[in-house]
Amino acid sequence: MKKEIKPNTLAMPTPVWCVGTYDKDDKPNVMTIAWGGICCSTPPMLTVSLRKATYTYGAIMERGVYTVSIPSAKYVVEADYFGIASGKDTDKFSATGLTPVRSTVVDAPYVDEFPLIFECKVVETVELGLHTQFVGEILGIKADENVLNEKGRPMMDAVDCFTFSPTTREYLGLGDVVGKSFSIGKKFLK
Amino acid sequence: MKKEIKPNTLAMPTPVWCVGTYDKDDKPNVMTIAWGGICCSTPPMLTVSLRKATYTYGAIMERGVYTVSIPSAKYVVEADYFGIASGKDTDKFSATGLTPVRSTVVDAPYVDEFPLIFECKVVETVELGLHTQFVGEILGIKADENVLNEKGRPMMDAVDCFTFSPTTREYLGLGDVVGKSFSIGKKFLK
Repeated sequence: MKKEIKPNTLAMPTPVWCVGTYDKDDKPNVMTIAWGGICCSTPPMLTVSLRKATYTYGAIMERGVYTVSIPSAKYVVEADYFGIASGKDTDKFSATGLTPVRSTVVDAPYVDEFPLIFECKVVETVELGLHTQFVGEILGIKADENVLNEKGRPMMDAVDCFTFSPTTREYLGLGDVVGKSFSIGKKFLK
Repeated sequence: MKKEIKPNTLAMPTPVWCVGTYDKDDKPNVMTIAWGGICCSTPPMLTVSLRKATYTYGAIMERGVYTVSIPSAKYVVEADYFGIASGKDTDKFSATGLTPVRSTVVDAPYVDEFPLIFECKVVETVELGLHTQFVGEILGIKADENVLNEKGRPMMDAVDCFTFSPTTREYLGLGDVVGKSFSIGKKFLK
């Protein structure tokens, strides 16, 4: 018998992504989010959801583009800071010493030290409530060579991304392989 | 210097969620997805993206509701099967021996053996391309008592959810704590 609990946002696991934008003065900014995910394979698209009160919201509304820089666990302190401070009154790149690089594909900056970057153009803006969802078409990807396999595909263990546990207010790294996908389930096929 | 790679959907980490629906004949079905995430805090909402060709797509279009059952790693084989087989020609619950339970909140079934369930009503249907995104308001949550902390909030380590690594076609469990959120980043605050 399951217990009923009040609706909340504790579905899991969530990503930890850093959304890069320029403000009106071309100052680069970056904000950490957990409300996002892949939403379409063809064309490839991902979503990020932001509150209207954030500085990044205004920047995306202005230029219609953003990057997603995926942090490695070694940059967890910087990623946490990117979710605490506001670009309204701070230059988060200067504060952390990380390097903003202008995307060659969209008019937005990414975090050079992070291993995997998605360059996105907004194709849908969905007003949902406290959050606005920006659906971005992925127009480009940039990656550090050492996180790519021989076919040029990013490897999760090399990216060393992490997830967010809201209940315990912790970031968790990746764990062991628990199964082969599109494979182990075949035992139930008739 | 980063390497440019062709746009794809290899952003990470992604969830592994099992979407429950009834078909026209009231047969319960469940399908595993990785394209989804939380998209709004107030009201709480989550998204799942599905191809039109899936049986679940038609079922959601018909009744406008779905559940998300989050599998524990101990059910990784069943979860993988739910993503391989189609409800068109299979009763996936019978095949695996898992138990469909009718939600008391929405007209959709969930997987009783999975520890954490979200009961959702579609509030937005966004046509994106190969995938259609269903934004669902979370109207109810049901959880096994042993995955809740003393405040009634689900704990990730007790749920023992896992993530999907598309490049290696593996499921990965959760790893170690790599930092405290809304905390470790304060060192950069002025």
